[in-house]
Amino acid sequence: MNKNQHIHDVAIERISGGDRALASDVLSVEEPLEIRLDFELAGKRAQKSISITMRTPGEDFELAAGFLFTEGIVRNRADIASIQYCKSPESEEHSPNIVRVELEPGVEFDAVKLHRNFYTTSSCGVCGKASLDAIRQQGCPEISDSGPKIQSKLVHGLPEMLRNVQRTFDLTGSLHGCGLFTPEGELVYVFEDVGRHNALDKLIGHAMLNGVDWLANSLLVLSGRISFELVQKALMAGIPLIAAVGAPSTLAVELAREHNMTLLGFVRDDRFNIYTSPWRIL
Amino acid sequence: MNKNQHIHDVAIERISGGDRALASDVLSVEEPLEIRLDFELAGKRAQKSISITMRTPGEDFELAAGFLFTEGIVRNRADIASIQYCKSPESEEHSPNIVRVELEPGVEFDAVKLHRNFYTTSSCGVCGKASLDAIRQQGCPEISDSGPKIQSKLVHGLPEMLRNVQRTFDLTGSLHGCGLFTPEGELVYVFEDVGRHNALDKLIGHAMLNGVDWLANSLLVLSGRISFELVQKALMAGIPLIAAVGAPSTLAVELAREHNMTLLGFVRDDRFNIYTSPWRIL
Repeated sequence: MNKNQHIHDVAIERISGGDRALASDVLSVEEPLEIRLDFELAGKRAQKSISITMRTPGEDFELAAGFLFTEGIVRNRADIASIQYCKSPESEEHSPNIVRVELEPGVEFDAVKLHRNFYTTSSCGVCGKASLDAIRQQGCPEISDSGPKIQSKLVHGLPEMLRNVQRTFDLTGSLHGCGLFTPEGELVYVFEDVGRHNALDKLIGHAMLNGVDWLANSLLVLSGRISFELVQKALMAGIPLIAAVGAPSTLAVELAREHNMTLLGFVRDDRFNIYTSPWRIL
Repeated sequence: MNKNQHIHDVAIERISGGDRALASDVLSVEEPLEIRLDFELAGKRAQKSISITMRTPGEDFELAAGFLFTEGIVRNRADIASIQYCKSPESEEHSPNIVRVELEPGVEFDAVKLHRNFYTTSSCGVCGKASLDAIRQQGCPEISDSGPKIQSKLVHGLPEMLRNVQRTFDLTGSLHGCGLFTPEGELVYVFEDVGRHNALDKLIGHAMLNGVDWLANSLLVLSGRISFELVQKALMAGIPLIAAVGAPSTLAVELAREHNMTLLGFVRDDRFNIYTSPWRIL
């Protein structure tokens, strides 16, 4: 991770009790990223802008790859021919905020499906149940019972390990972090972003681009809360366990339960809650 | 606010140190909401689905109205003919997750503009500067110098007042809250949601639907961090000051600075940082 792309100094006034003083503060960088897809349509190459997200710059190829993977547009890195920054329309320079992903010939892309993804089915309109159904139809990998089993003692220590690494990178106190761990509690990757869905897309994209083949035997640790969207992304990657410092939502728990994923929340102060698949915790 | 729509009980296992016990936990409800727009196009009525967001149910009309307002689709409540839940395709019952907003005849709607909103301009592609430019062109109200000036002593107490009300509603520890205050520090409205942008859309939508005309003389307090998107929404509503428990991003600060808005972050432990327009703090 490139610290300089993540943070930026600003001049502020700091109030402390009754005192007021000029000071400086370090902020997380937030900039838009546009993801463009270059794909085959009826035998010809076509381009489409499929996403604009506010993110912290720095791991943009990982973010783009992870987004495409967790949205079900690519299945693995073999589907991707290239990832590069686009040329700006005004000059020959590469724009740091537009990434173009070129799909291999024959990789299908359905723009309509992308926009209806995950939230709706034609039968019942839009509801939590439809969101769960859509994920099932999306074809995420099955999470098997043969995956990792973890000592609860090990769980207590996971957020602290993530925080120790985050502290090195995050001087702002304001980046969401996510870390990938082995079942033995070894921290392998950490990614950060102003948006927590982006942090997870970066982590999953990095794993995909590097051919990591042990996600079915990994643990995901989140610095914040667990939304439906984060469980959905982890499911697409086949990750069997999420441990988070914050709380899950109802729909996050329902989705995890339906897919045999273990969800742990409020992992702090030597306590945690097991919401689903408790048998993975020894 | 209807507490029952916001929360839901689940059975869990609770680990505390070495102890393990069955227990129950209260979760925030997360469900998708689709917003459909019914508008005039070339003299005929047309319908378009313009947004699906994961939200906490309960103030859906406020959320829809606030979203349309902060996206620049409606300017005030006079632009809206009606807001109602849609009939489900399968039965005559109203779907609790689809809201249809009917615009008054003559209110223009540009679907292309909606999707390019806020992040891009045609001249330079996509970048933070383009995002700032787009907001300027969007025509948010000018924030004048004649607005509120606040005692720093009063600022210290704002998050605690928000938290006290949140505590009543939020048993989950996981809802984002935002509160609207008078310059004298009186809390007028609180809204909560699993998504912080939704909480703010609900607050602004509620103010718009109820003809609140003093937003230019109000304070907005956020329970979390300050993103570009939250500043953008507050700007559209003409709110001159945001005080947040968390940190702002770079682009949030740039946007606030450009529009004469006061941004306060890390408002906790009898301290806070002033990022922009410090003259409003006495």
